Amino acid sequence: MDVYIGLLGCGTVGSGVIELTRRRSAKIADLTGLRPVIKRVLVRDVHKARDVAVEHDLLTDRAEDILHDDEISIVVETIGGIEPAKTFILEAIRGRKHVVTANKDLIALCGQEILEVAEQNGVDVYYEAAVGGAIPVIRPLKECLTANNITDLKGIINGTTNYILSKMTETGASFEEALREAQELGYAEADPSSDVDGLDAARKLTILASIAFQTRVRLEDVRVTGIRGVTATDVAYAQELGAVIKLLAVGKDRDGILTLEVRPTLVPKHHPLASVSGSFNALFVTGDAAGDLLFFGRGAGSLPTASSVVGDVIDCLRNIKLGVSGRVGEVLMFRKRVDPAKAEPVSHYLRLQVEDQPGVFARIAAIFGDAAVSMETVVQKRARGGHAEIVVVTHKAAPVDVDRVVEALRALPSVRAVAAVMPVESNGDT
Amino acid sequence: MDVYIGLLGCGTVGSGVIELTRRRSAKIADLTGLRPVIKRVLVRDVHKARDVAVEHDLLTDRAEDILHDDEISIVVETIGGIEPAKTFILEAIRGRKHVVTANKDLIALCGQEILEVAEQNGVDVYYEAAVGGAIPVIRPLKECLTANNITDLKGIINGTTNYILSKMTETGASFEEALREAQELGYAEADPSSDVDGLDAARKLTILASIAFQTRVRLEDVRVTGIRGVTATDVAYAQELGAVIKLLAVGKDRDGILTLEVRPTLVPKHHPLASVSGSFNALFVTGDAAGDLLFFGRGAGSLPTASSVVGDVIDCLRNIKLGVSGRVGEVLMFRKRVDPAKAEPVSHYLRLQVEDQPGVFARIAAIFGDAAVSMETVVQKRARGGHAEIVVVTHKAAPVDVDRVVEALRALPSVRAVAAVMPVESNGDT
Repeated sequence: MDVYIGLLGCGTVGSGVIELTRRRSAKIADLTGLRPVIKRVLVRDVHKARDVAVEHDLLTDRAEDILHDDEISIVVETIGGIEPAKTFILEAIRGRKHVVTANKDLIALCGQEILEVAEQNGVDVYYEAAVGGAIPVIRPLKECLTANNITDLKGIINGTTNYILSKMTETGASFEEALREAQELGYAEADPSSDVDGLDAARKLTILASIAFQTRVRLEDVRVTGIRGVTATDVAYAQELGAVIKLLAVGKDRDGILTLEVRPTLVPKHHPLASVSGSFNALFVTGDAAGDLLFFGRGAGSLPTASSVVGDVIDCLRNIKLGVSGRVGEVLMFRKRVDPAKAEPVSHYLRLQVEDQPGVFARIAAIFGDAAVSMETVVQKRARGGHAEIVVVTHKAAPVDVDRVVEALRALPSVRAVAAVMPVESNGDT
Repeated sequence: MDVYIGLLGCGTVGSGVIELTRRRSAKIADLTGLRPVIKRVLVRDVHKARDVAVEHDLLTDRAEDILHDDEISIVVETIGGIEPAKTFILEAIRGRKHVVTANKDLIALCGQEILEVAEQNGVDVYYEAAVGGAIPVIRPLKECLTANNITDLKGIINGTTNYILSKMTETGASFEEALREAQELGYAEADPSSDVDGLDAARKLTILASIAFQTRVRLEDVRVTGIRGVTATDVAYAQELGAVIKLLAVGKDRDGILTLEVRPTLVPKHHPLASVSGSFNALFVTGDAAGDLLFFGRGAGSLPTASSVVGDVIDCLRNIKLGVSGRVGEVLMFRKRVDPAKAEPVSHYLRLQVEDQPGVFARIAAIFGDAAVSMETVVQKRARGGHAEIVVVTHKAAPVDVDRVVEALRALPSVRAVAAVMPVESNGDT
């Protein structure tokens, strides 16, 4: 039997969904007894030339051709962004259509509302592709690891910034140069702010943390620092210290108190996350029973994302065949508190620009000492332009104490700038 | 509502299942509406002292107390081995009980039979814990990646051999010394043959390949070489070559022709699999849409294995609640051919012991040349005990051609021994 799908959007992800659905429709029919058929594709301009071979009469620029078509039982949304995607999805759900989406922005910001409406209407909303592209992370968290209390999420979940930081590490390029190259290659958008300012990673962390910690995490709960401030100098110093700089998304649950952060971080070269380069994504998950787990793969791209989308479509088909819905559902059942002040002690990297004068060093050391932040490594770098550069790596220290150190350093006349402050990951467990 | 579980076996895994089910029963009840309660535990000796706190009246030494108890809807099997586990599981299935098992031997050898009987009886059999311990691999392969044609499986799926090889690498120990230590620490059994001869890995590869390639793979289809032949010398030479020796399980599907192999392999130090040490497991999966994916985590242990078992129990509860079964089912729908002769060209490491005489080297080089196997690196090592040692790393060459080289070398009077032949992984893609 054929099951009709309406596809919203025909960009990178949408084209991949068309391509992969066609390649696999016979196999999926063998597997589930139901053959997925893309009946209509919503596009802005039906006359535009397209990379993917799609029959012209499938295309429509009127959403109601999909949303009001009773033959269509699954709507796949690949438009992205909040509107009109949200309105379309809610209308599809109210029309009792299952929904598969790759839309991380929408799920991060309006996920709860959408999932509640879906439950009321007896349909499912799947979004495996919203985080980690091809990597199965949502379903493992929701289904395989349900017996765990998840305590830690830690990963590289934005390919654009990872590509830029990898380039800076490999070539010594500045942020601006690496960004320009990423834009030329299509890895970064013309307006790159959502990626480079860490918002995309923060939205994905919001989704992951909500599922893993089984509570409602809001985007505002995530402390976000992007990578615009990462300089070639810091990348070089990190390498001298045996580390690379990565934009890490970190979520922790300590007895119901959460800390959530997206931040450039020094990762030791032998840590498994250090070798995640280019546009790949990786996510560590720690459960109280399972221990440490790592999921790794392509975080974006047409077919990799379509792999997860069509996987979700197959799940819909299985539910349709059995006439069930809400089998797994959402699991936001606990009240937990987000408290950045409870962030655990970690080692920190600081780069200071100071007057090249006697006594400066002692004054700096005193500030660290007063805040009970002990220094593991201190390197005085060659003076540049009349000032000296000091790189400090601290022993593990509470972020709030390091914040106090930074404030005191900035108040010191002989300190021209606290040019960089980044956490340092400890070595991986493997 | 309570759902009763009968547990077969109360060893390492069984104890973990009791512990974790208790820890999470309230949470699982909140999540699914059904509370899992372990009603009976089958043990050999009800009077034996046990680590896990289990009420004495739960214990029984009569399987029928579980298998014939109509109140029990889920049977969790943690006995291991073929019999009596197989008889118990088939009886449970015929009694319309869902089954969760961690038994890789049974699933590898009798999986098809068991799953067919389950389908006839309208119950589900889950076995996420049978491969990769805590790592979600079965469900991602069966559900998330279904839209892919999986082309490659490659991984470290036996913790015991990985521990032994890691020890040999770290300390320079011989195989025997490292094995003894593993036995003392409980990582290897008194009779270690199933692990060190590669059979355990082969059974797991059988399970993974059947699911990933959607065909029936039999244990006999896997070419197996264990690690007994790996010497401290090879480990040291591998390190000189920038590699570590790992027991890799590799499955490939090239247009329906499969090659399946478990074999000690030189893995370059920067390859992601090289840093998988101790008792950890890791599995690369390549799909035509998803690209490369890596799954990593604890491959064994009480709570890590219980994490997967109880995850499966929760899946059973979801099915019980909706009154469905066979939602995913098995997917062995293609006929594929296993043909070891079709193994793809890879680089090979060879260690030869030769007479320390003029002209030997030229004769060896001629043999490689005649077989069209070109040498990438040749290192003549210091003579030991009157013979010289030659280490050759070939360019990529078909295994059948390398087999011919080895045969010809062995026929050469000046070659005392071909002491080692191992494939060499190319550098990882990341």
